[in-house]
Amino acid sequence: MSTFSLLADKHSATIDRALAAVHDRSFHAHWPEAPSGKIYGETANADGQAAFEAQKSKAFDRLLQQGVVLHHGEEESPYGFTLGITYPVTSADHLMRQAHAAMASWQKLSVRERAAVLIECLEDASKHFFEIGYATQHTTGQGFVMSFQASGPHSFDRALEAVATGVHALESFVTEQEWTKPMGKMNVVLKKRFHVRPKGVNVTIGCSTFPVWNTLPGMFASLITGAATIAKAHTKVVYPIAIVVASMQHTLARLGLDPHLVQLACGAHEHRITHDLLENPLLGTVDYTGSSQFGNEVEAICARNKVTCFTEKAGVNNIVLGSAANLDAVLDNIAFSLSLYSGQMCTAPQNIFIPENGVSDGEAHVSFDDVCSRLAAKVRDIAHNEKMGPTTLGALQNPHTKDRLEAASALSVQVILPSERIAQPGFDHARTYSPLILKAGVEQAELYENEWFGPIAFVIPVEDFSHGVRRVAQIVRAHGALTSACYTTDEAQQREAEEMLIDAGVPVAFNFTGPIWINQSAAFSDFHGTGANNAGNASYADLSFVAARYNVIGTRVCG
Amino acid sequence: MSTFSLLADKHSATIDRALAAVHDRSFHAHWPEAPSGKIYGETANADGQAAFEAQKSKAFDRLLQQGVVLHHGEEESPYGFTLGITYPVTSADHLMRQAHAAMASWQKLSVRERAAVLIECLEDASKHFFEIGYATQHTTGQGFVMSFQASGPHSFDRALEAVATGVHALESFVTEQEWTKPMGKMNVVLKKRFHVRPKGVNVTIGCSTFPVWNTLPGMFASLITGAATIAKAHTKVVYPIAIVVASMQHTLARLGLDPHLVQLACGAHEHRITHDLLENPLLGTVDYTGSSQFGNEVEAICARNKVTCFTEKAGVNNIVLGSAANLDAVLDNIAFSLSLYSGQMCTAPQNIFIPENGVSDGEAHVSFDDVCSRLAAKVRDIAHNEKMGPTTLGALQNPHTKDRLEAASALSVQVILPSERIAQPGFDHARTYSPLILKAGVEQAELYENEWFGPIAFVIPVEDFSHGVRRVAQIVRAHGALTSACYTTDEAQQREAEEMLIDAGVPVAFNFTGPIWINQSAAFSDFHGTGANNAGNASYADLSFVAARYNVIGTRVCG
Repeated sequence: MSTFSLLADKHSATIDRALAAVHDRSFHAHWPEAPSGKIYGETANADGQAAFEAQKSKAFDRLLQQGVVLHHGEEESPYGFTLGITYPVTSADHLMRQAHAAMASWQKLSVRERAAVLIECLEDASKHFFEIGYATQHTTGQGFVMSFQASGPHSFDRALEAVATGVHALESFVTEQEWTKPMGKMNVVLKKRFHVRPKGVNVTIGCSTFPVWNTLPGMFASLITGAATIAKAHTKVVYPIAIVVASMQHTLARLGLDPHLVQLACGAHEHRITHDLLENPLLGTVDYTGSSQFGNEVEAICARNKVTCFTEKAGVNNIVLGSAANLDAVLDNIAFSLSLYSGQMCTAPQNIFIPENGVSDGEAHVSFDDVCSRLAAKVRDIAHNEKMGPTTLGALQNPHTKDRLEAASALSVQVILPSERIAQPGFDHARTYSPLILKAGVEQAELYENEWFGPIAFVIPVEDFSHGVRRVAQIVRAHGALTSACYTTDEAQQREAEEMLIDAGVPVAFNFTGPIWINQSAAFSDFHGTGANNAGNASYADLSFVAARYNVIGTRVCG
Repeated sequence: MSTFSLLADKHSATIDRALAAVHDRSFHAHWPEAPSGKIYGETANADGQAAFEAQKSKAFDRLLQQGVVLHHGEEESPYGFTLGITYPVTSADHLMRQAHAAMASWQKLSVRERAAVLIECLEDASKHFFEIGYATQHTTGQGFVMSFQASGPHSFDRALEAVATGVHALESFVTEQEWTKPMGKMNVVLKKRFHVRPKGVNVTIGCSTFPVWNTLPGMFASLITGAATIAKAHTKVVYPIAIVVASMQHTLARLGLDPHLVQLACGAHEHRITHDLLENPLLGTVDYTGSSQFGNEVEAICARNKVTCFTEKAGVNNIVLGSAANLDAVLDNIAFSLSLYSGQMCTAPQNIFIPENGVSDGEAHVSFDDVCSRLAAKVRDIAHNEKMGPTTLGALQNPHTKDRLEAASALSVQVILPSERIAQPGFDHARTYSPLILKAGVEQAELYENEWFGPIAFVIPVEDFSHGVRRVAQIVRAHGALTSACYTTDEAQQREAEEMLIDAGVPVAFNFTGPIWINQSAAFSDFHGTGANNAGNASYADLSFVAARYNVIGTRVCG
């Protein structure tokens, strides 16, 4: 047996289990999310931290890609120090030609062989989960546990999900068939072959807050369908994805494959290299995560060049709080959603619509003002809890987010909870701030219909639950959203809200309490991004996320 | 059991057989292609012809759609008479609002129920195959047998293929699941629902040569995914698709569904109603078949409005003739391909590249000039065969095609075979002309790299087979193509050609002889259009042809 068919055997249970999970959307995690020594090895944390410390102030020299013209790096930890790592810079043209050259032999592998190679890459790279965690913490500002989970197991499960979805799509049709058409006394027989032809090289443009989680799905969806991929890292957040790309290159080389199937792109002039990649004729597909402004530009360039483009941009996420069986549990849940990574998740809620006459809490009734003050107290308690606060909040990735927080604090509206600087033990200069909660009138749409990225939330009084849901649907239609949440104990209200919000194109979470938050999106089960509103045109991982990356081209041989 | 679950039972074998055929790409035909009384009823032909005669010079009054503002018709038979049929004209806004209103209840049916309703629609409409055949003959100019097959069984099989591909795509994921995440000593349990949300109303813009075959795939792919569809007919070729739409509306009404799920759009000002439909905010997807010029405009409008667009435009199809086991059989096959419907199929070949030193025919060798003269003789023989010629050629749909034929005849190049007027028995004024064959130098790319739609072909001497293949790949990259064909007895040459042409993005037919022609594309087996070159971005029916029509949006309910 060949290396690749042996590898397909080795990973067959993994891919089969992933295929089943993708179909039935039940809970599945191939990589456990706990950063536990019992799971990942007793020295894994210490080793990861040591690798992180050893990498600081040095050139990142683990990549196998050719054509390096200079080294560049400009990463700063949001916890208050300079990383001082430099990365090899390769020209867009060089990257694209190397990627294209790597594709032909890759396409000669069977689908299951490609899947096995990709799983082997993921298994090897998972050995670096702890270093990836520290790299993520000190580029994005996430707390360590979130960094580990989001860039490690959760990202890798999303990658495996993309691989499985690709296998499902590609196995929808056979690759060869003898076609026999009865024509009266004779038959016409044709030998047919169906070739999967990727549209071209993939470029996945990463963001500064989730540099691995938002990057692996597009890369792996491209790879499984036969394309090579280039990870264009955000200039200020390179390290986490660089570890993954370097590890994949080593696995590919070990297996005798061209390591240029997966490359890292970064540059001193962020937009210049991105534009050069986007205008290259070898480009076939683009995945993008980031601001709506640049995302719209990327979409326009791709539309002009007839390049298929998958985007996740920004939106405005909303909660409607109408009634609760246990208001305390609801407010705990919302307070945590607002605090987690300081509102820097694309899925974090910004606006909370609450009936002006208050909400029912079981048999009791709680006024609007009391709901707000109880929510504020819970947010304050999380932020000031010495054990939980700093790790939950993390730090602000971008100094501009601090500027935005100051601008929001200076708005002429009622402050429900002011933002405060929060100490990060061990990091005296960390950019850590507790969430700001403001009250806006429902008519002040120009305020709360903007995305205020960061730890900034609005409570907005509405006539009733239904009014809130209507406002949310309008906001989703106008500005897009990644998530929404509704709290109601009334089943008819729930059905009505579900219908309206699905029609508006946004997922809905109902009555979330306990250790599950709307910010979370589970691989194999939740479709992340709907593609149905202005927050993006793609979804991890629906069928079109893979099926739009390639064409099927037939050969017919007579006789 | 409900009407719809009974219907799902009734048609379960049909959908299951279609699903299997879509997967394994083997020969399948739900509707037999022979226009035979034994199959379709002894009086079917006479009844169809009588229906056609009765419809002439009358208003088409079978549609159930509301909002008719005037009647309009301008159809002329290419066989030389005026049809005199008028069709109800409804404003784009009215059509779109009616379509949108019909979608909500349609989406409440299960996928299998929608499939069954659509099969019921097709079965009912198939009762009109013969009238559809005469309507197609006298609008497109096709011969009757081709009209019957192309607009009848072959179209309906393409519709069923789209339905089956949609069922496959939609059944890739469950619609509901209980998700249980183990969290140490407790579990988090969420009830999840996954809603399929079509992007909006579909508009399918039909063409003048295949008014049903190129229209049903987009319509049925849209319908199975929960959308309503509007068939925008070519102003001069309305009748065939009008019969299908009217029949579907009656079936839907009989089943208690809103007949506005399927509507006909036509208008006195062709481009005005099309533009009004394309700019309507309820629009979600567009299917287009027709000229590249208008197709590029449609693509640009859709890109601007972020509407998903599936196109089949025009290309330049090519043959490379290098060697043959039996040259006579090869030339018979090519001659018929050039003659069939006077080269008015989007799949018809235009350019034939032949080595300047001639081709090998088994053990013998035939010079370039002899290959050309033998091909010319075979084309002449078909055209002048009184039984076979007129029915194979049909008539030129558009008077401009006659103008183009005259312009080509006047080119300063060697004429291998002049075009002649051919008599159509029973139709003294038919626009029937035999194919023109010209010889162009390989350097005269400005001539043969243009699409010369109609019965116009070029023979072009090249250095050798490989040179011809390289030229074809270049033409495909520059101008797009729907088909290509290669003749070679050398297996290494075949492999090389296959690799080069698949890479260029065009399907390849090798060594076609006997009763199978590259013009043909079989439902359930051949992907029609690749989406991989400038001849269009879509394919009947790959996964993205259905999966790009909708989004999946999740609901999560806690507790």
